[in-house]
Amino acid sequence: MAAVSSNLDPEVAKRLRRNDAGLVPAIVQEHGTGQVLMMAWMNDEALHRTLTTGRATYWSRSRDELWIKGETSGHVQHVRSVAIDCDGDTLLVTVEQTGAACHTGEHTCFYTPLEVIR
Amino acid sequence: MAAVSSNLDPEVAKRLRRNDAGLVPAIVQEHGTGQVLMMAWMNDEALHRTLTTGRATYWSRSRDELWIKGETSGHVQHVRSVAIDCDGDTLLVTVEQTGAACHTGEHTCFYTPLEVIR
Repeated sequence: MAAVSSNLDPEVAKRLRRNDAGLVPAIVQEHGTGQVLMMAWMNDEALHRTLTTGRATYWSRSRDELWIKGETSGHVQHVRSVAIDCDGDTLLVTVEQTGAACHTGEHTCFYTPLEVIR
Repeated sequence: MAAVSSNLDPEVAKRLRRNDAGLVPAIVQEHGTGQVLMMAWMNDEALHRTLTTGRATYWSRSRDELWIKGETSGHVQHVRSVAIDCDGDTLLVTVEQTGAACHTGEHTCFYTPLEVIR
């Protein structure tokens, strides 16, 4: 899908391979602990803001709007680094997490193990 | 989307929130280093095999078939743990990675940083 109008650097925008909704998944990892905290989605403008404001910003698919993580909860994410994967369809965002990343109050959204049978 | 026929434990299957293609993203993290290696997609059967064979198995969207990671390259992933996120739409798979996770030969697919401007 073509990018919608955004302020994202065109050199970065042309690397992105977006889904049909114009979004790419962003994996969020905690700086220091290495813990994977959550996955969210970004459009071009969310990535632009993440790269330029230092605050992790996503596209809320339920509210259909830009979502600055922690804006209401206070559980903000300060961006340390962002990487794009080999084929441009996934982002990895490393953050300093304030409080819980998960809306349930858990530190990470991945708090439910599934049984692995060996 | 409803699950297609698979051998996945119904108790696990009912927790999954799949996309329109019947897939959920699986974040792959390396045991020990904590490095995020790649992201891939699973359908119910791929998750079933990942949980029961100890070998990370995905759904290849390009080949439209189950894909046992490393089956041709030898770069297999032995599964240490699997977690599902708070809303059931993303998986986190922890693996012992043999060789490179990325098809480019890099250890991780996330080897390209994007510039963060503070």
